[in-house]
Amino acid sequence: MSEAKFIIVEALFPGLTQLDFTGPHTVFSRLPAIEVIVASAAGGAIPSDGGLVFAGTRKLAEIERCDLLFVPGGASATAAALDENFMIELRRLARGARYLTSVCTGSLILGAAGLLNGKRAACHWAWRHMLPLFGAVPDEARVVRDGNVITGGGVTAGIDFALAVAAEIAGETTAQAIQLGLEYAPAPPFNAGRPETAPAEVLAIVNGVNASIQPRRLAEAKEAATRLR
Amino acid sequence: MSEAKFIIVEALFPGLTQLDFTGPHTVFSRLPAIEVIVASAAGGAIPSDGGLVFAGTRKLAEIERCDLLFVPGGASATAAALDENFMIELRRLARGARYLTSVCTGSLILGAAGLLNGKRAACHWAWRHMLPLFGAVPDEARVVRDGNVITGGGVTAGIDFALAVAAEIAGETTAQAIQLGLEYAPAPPFNAGRPETAPAEVLAIVNGVNASIQPRRLAEAKEAATRLR
Repeated sequence: MSEAKFIIVEALFPGLTQLDFTGPHTVFSRLPAIEVIVASAAGGAIPSDGGLVFAGTRKLAEIERCDLLFVPGGASATAAALDENFMIELRRLARGARYLTSVCTGSLILGAAGLLNGKRAACHWAWRHMLPLFGAVPDEARVVRDGNVITGGGVTAGIDFALAVAAEIAGETTAQAIQLGLEYAPAPPFNAGRPETAPAEVLAIVNGVNASIQPRRLAEAKEAATRLR
Repeated sequence: MSEAKFIIVEALFPGLTQLDFTGPHTVFSRLPAIEVIVASAAGGAIPSDGGLVFAGTRKLAEIERCDLLFVPGGASATAAALDENFMIELRRLARGARYLTSVCTGSLILGAAGLLNGKRAACHWAWRHMLPLFGAVPDEARVVRDGNVITGGGVTAGIDFALAVAAEIAGETTAQAIQLGLEYAPAPPFNAGRPETAPAEVLAIVNGVNASIQPRRLAEAKEAATRLR
């Protein structure tokens, strides 16, 4: 029975950006003939940004295989890339998967697992310069496909990413039905969603916040890259 | 100390559509000088669509007051509107709030609490025809403001809604910085997010699914409306 279902494993880690995950999860969980497994290295409750806690995640080590592996990002993504147990399970599941996917800085995690060598990949705009540490080629598109690797840009790109994945797996009509059910006809009140379009003052604020965590993230990413060699 | 903070209460209920909630929560939790409280009638773990469970919500009855009350929607929204304890707590918190807000079918819950009488409100496109049961005036805009009531349309409208609320509370620059941090420059792969733009075949699929739950929802909404009189 379960052999016939397409299995998606969503690999969470403490401190993830929850919207990186919850946007795609909403789309994936509405696909027909699908099994979506929310998992983490330790299993159990996983805290995310903004204080939300997801209860009852399954242990990655207990999941036999999947058709699609999905990894969200977060402020702790580079720390997660240093969790050897997490990396081992991602590599194991990746070996049997048809698709390897991520959103936001989740691509740094895929990279640290050695899964993006020579691949083009998306990432959050503020962090995509770190991708070459893992042999990946940064691509500024919102959704990037390179072979069996499908990646999305920062946070909200996850919804566009997931609809593209839904169309790939289940066809355009199904993806469009999910889009209609989610009333996804976005109308942002401002045009500030990309560094190229945001007012200079706004970009300076966000760059200032990011600069404060850049040293830690870069050190963690470099350490993760060292372990790959 | 906490008196100075702007308090947002997010009122969850079992079976909510998690993206109705997680989109706005991401925006709200990034506002400066804010306290975001995730709560529910019973407190504790709250299950949502797609199998996700939010751990550790606070009990609404234990929250003294808030500046902004937010209610998401979901397939169980009209059932939640029949939970007298939930309605009592929403009415109590609403009395001291500067803003009353909702996303998707959360406006049916605000309506059932008697908070939308004579007000224009948004709702998910497939369910907004139920708003007049509660004396509210359906508005097909993605974000609708009528006095101190700010409501968003279906599911993903919550992100546009929350950025509009963020601008109202903290100013446009802050809202734009949050938008940039979330890389919210949406690019849907299809133009199927509204019934007016979706292919006829796609609309027929979604209408078919909705028709199957329409009798239950309508019966629940009518019962909730009866209790208001």
